[in-house]
Amino acid sequence: MRMYDLIIKKRDGGAHTPEEIKYIVEGYTKGDIPDYQMSAWLMTVYYKGMNNEETVELTKAMAASGDMLDLSAIEGVKVDKHSTGGVGDKTTFIVAPILASLGVPMAKMSGRGLGHTGGTIDKLESIEGFNVSIPTGEFIDNVNNIKLSLVGQTGNLAPADKKIYALRDVTATVDSLPLIASSIMSKKLAAGADVIVLDVKCGTGAFMKTPEEAKTLARTMVDIGNMAGRKTYGVITDMNEPLGCKVGNALEVEEAVEVLSIKDIDKALSEASDVNYGIRRLIKVSLCLASYMLMGAGVTSSYDEAYAMCKKAIESGNALDKMAQFVEAQGGNKEYIYDTNLLPKAKHIVPVYMEKEGYLTSCKNSEVGMVSLILGGGRATKESEIDLAVGVNVRKHLGEFVSKDEVFAYIHANSDDIIEEAKKRLLGAYIVSDEPCQIEEVVKFVVE
Amino acid sequence: MRMYDLIIKKRDGGAHTPEEIKYIVEGYTKGDIPDYQMSAWLMTVYYKGMNNEETVELTKAMAASGDMLDLSAIEGVKVDKHSTGGVGDKTTFIVAPILASLGVPMAKMSGRGLGHTGGTIDKLESIEGFNVSIPTGEFIDNVNNIKLSLVGQTGNLAPADKKIYALRDVTATVDSLPLIASSIMSKKLAAGADVIVLDVKCGTGAFMKTPEEAKTLARTMVDIGNMAGRKTYGVITDMNEPLGCKVGNALEVEEAVEVLSIKDIDKALSEASDVNYGIRRLIKVSLCLASYMLMGAGVTSSYDEAYAMCKKAIESGNALDKMAQFVEAQGGNKEYIYDTNLLPKAKHIVPVYMEKEGYLTSCKNSEVGMVSLILGGGRATKESEIDLAVGVNVRKHLGEFVSKDEVFAYIHANSDDIIEEAKKRLLGAYIVSDEPCQIEEVVKFVVE
Repeated sequence: MRMYDLIIKKRDGGAHTPEEIKYIVEGYTKGDIPDYQMSAWLMTVYYKGMNNEETVELTKAMAASGDMLDLSAIEGVKVDKHSTGGVGDKTTFIVAPILASLGVPMAKMSGRGLGHTGGTIDKLESIEGFNVSIPTGEFIDNVNNIKLSLVGQTGNLAPADKKIYALRDVTATVDSLPLIASSIMSKKLAAGADVIVLDVKCGTGAFMKTPEEAKTLARTMVDIGNMAGRKTYGVITDMNEPLGCKVGNALEVEEAVEVLSIKDIDKALSEASDVNYGIRRLIKVSLCLASYMLMGAGVTSSYDEAYAMCKKAIESGNALDKMAQFVEAQGGNKEYIYDTNLLPKAKHIVPVYMEKEGYLTSCKNSEVGMVSLILGGGRATKESEIDLAVGVNVRKHLGEFVSKDEVFAYIHANSDDIIEEAKKRLLGAYIVSDEPCQIEEVVKFVVE
Repeated sequence: MRMYDLIIKKRDGGAHTPEEIKYIVEGYTKGDIPDYQMSAWLMTVYYKGMNNEETVELTKAMAASGDMLDLSAIEGVKVDKHSTGGVGDKTTFIVAPILASLGVPMAKMSGRGLGHTGGTIDKLESIEGFNVSIPTGEFIDNVNNIKLSLVGQTGNLAPADKKIYALRDVTATVDSLPLIASSIMSKKLAAGADVIVLDVKCGTGAFMKTPEEAKTLARTMVDIGNMAGRKTYGVITDMNEPLGCKVGNALEVEEAVEVLSIKDIDKALSEASDVNYGIRRLIKVSLCLASYMLMGAGVTSSYDEAYAMCKKAIESGNALDKMAQFVEAQGGNKEYIYDTNLLPKAKHIVPVYMEKEGYLTSCKNSEVGMVSLILGGGRATKESEIDLAVGVNVRKHLGEFVSKDEVFAYIHANSDDIIEEAKKRLLGAYIVSDEPCQIEEVVKFVVE
């Protein structure tokens, strides 16, 4: 087999055999196939695509290129959740304790962030003492004992994906559906879960801009997962504005705890509630994801029943207690969960007002993410130090009316010379209109 | 400017500015742009193409990447001819002496061959003493004195094209019209001629299979040439079987001399003539190319007049004498031109007969080329030594009837253990049919 012939095959619209895909992934990972041939092939895939069989083989080959986690020492069905990423996404801190409190083992492997806020690990490190570098044995024991543990991603998970992604990143071949889907799914397959629930974001703060694009990506990933023998769901959710109100590391932990502390979910979700509309969106997404995870785990086959169980897990306080138990088991100070005032706070908390009143009709969500980044809450490069305390707290959401004398948002900053720029950029991200606009559902649809 | 952005621009169907094309060519030649980005860009060009302006800029940038020959010391309009390559193509040895004998300066730069036979230089080296490594001063003097000289290609002609071609060759991005056209034309522009006549081959022995494909390539190259200020013609000619009868190095020189020795061209071209039909095809192509070169040089604007002058150059013996003069000026034994029996001869000259009688309806011409290669007449790799004496002499041509007892071809071999394979392969290249087929014109059309 020669890479040259395989480039021609794909270039001319052919479909690769499983052996050919394996040859490409293994050859490139080992260094037998040079970058320049791989990038030519990636560009043919950009134009010609791959069918489901090819995409599954690519995913499996990339997953098999490094460590395949063996979670068999954990009792029960292992369920994982993955988000394609967005602004203010803190659902992991809500769904993981819910599931664990319901007895479903959550063996979570997470990374640090690159972008507008930190990753799951960075956020958890805003809790005093929390340690993600625990040995595998302890990790497994924790999951068996309290059903929830979290470790940093190992270095050798799907190294083929890592190498291929780095090349795509510099050759304009990132925006390819089968390549995006296989990249995400290869890491999920290697991470060993039996059931995978994908939160596929769409909107101005997500990779996929429209629900239809997100649905196509979800469809591909769900097919890959199912064909690779993992029960997979894809939940398409809105990312046209931040999820919840808060964007920032400690701020997102705080907001997750806020949700886990709610005593009456139905009331919180009702129109009459004084719970912020952003929080309601966060609750809806979290409960939907948690319900599918519960169904995937085989606890029930009824969505309504699953939903009721998840709601109860919050309302009973069990999920919050599980969160505290999890923090404590990994060396963290569990008091942070019961008193979020202990979390790192920014020196300046500055209210922001709209310059004209009207309905919020549109938000450049990636710009809101950038505000958090320039405040110091995210990493511009891998080496950047992040400030856990800073961020944004948006009080008004798309479709809502905002007047000039009510607080639109708060900026949490540690240095006052960045505040004006942050304000300007935050306001610039929104369009205010005289005409009301339709409020979009936050959960669009589910692909399974 | 960043190569990444330029890949995206072309990927999404954009057209590059002259500055962008220059950035790409210079950056890649200098090594600032890595192979993997260049190959990704080349693949986008494969799919998205380039408009004429982009192609001209690419050609000019590649031409300017190395030495630009200065032929200003040569008096008169400098005319060059270029063939896109085929089997048995020896027109250079016919048209160059014709033009020189008519006073048009021919400053020819040629390469060694890689493929079924050697290149122009290899073929000329079958003449005792012929030397292509003459100093530039002597080259220019020869052209001024006798109007014809030939040197080996310098190392630094369009190095950007050389580097880009090497990358295309291993990344399946050769088959792209603008890339093919610009590659050929960059070398022509750098070689300094004022007028360029392109012999664009089509058929089973050429890169372009159909006359329409060849016409499209010719159109692009003619546009490039004209836009770059060089008067350019494209003559589309048939390559569905060898041009002439003989394929091989010394054999091709011999056949060119045969044509230059004809005393009555009209008679030779007439149906009643006993001149082989293959030779008649060769005469037609040669006279057409020579006539356009003469028109390009400004000697006459009438094709008929140019044609008559070229014919006369042969019939008068002037072109043959010019060939002898040219050989002598470069250290060669001119007696070889007047007595081709002096040329290297193969030990075995073996007649080949058809296994069934009928009309020759089709020829896999590249296979005929391969026969010459396996006999030792061509180079499989750059390092191969070639055998100047061997080759094939095909006596029957497409459309002709061939009986079982007349010689179809001769194989010229120096080792007898290859003869059977050569015979088998030669016969396997032809289809013999009971039904006569239409005889195709050898000169298809001219693009200017």
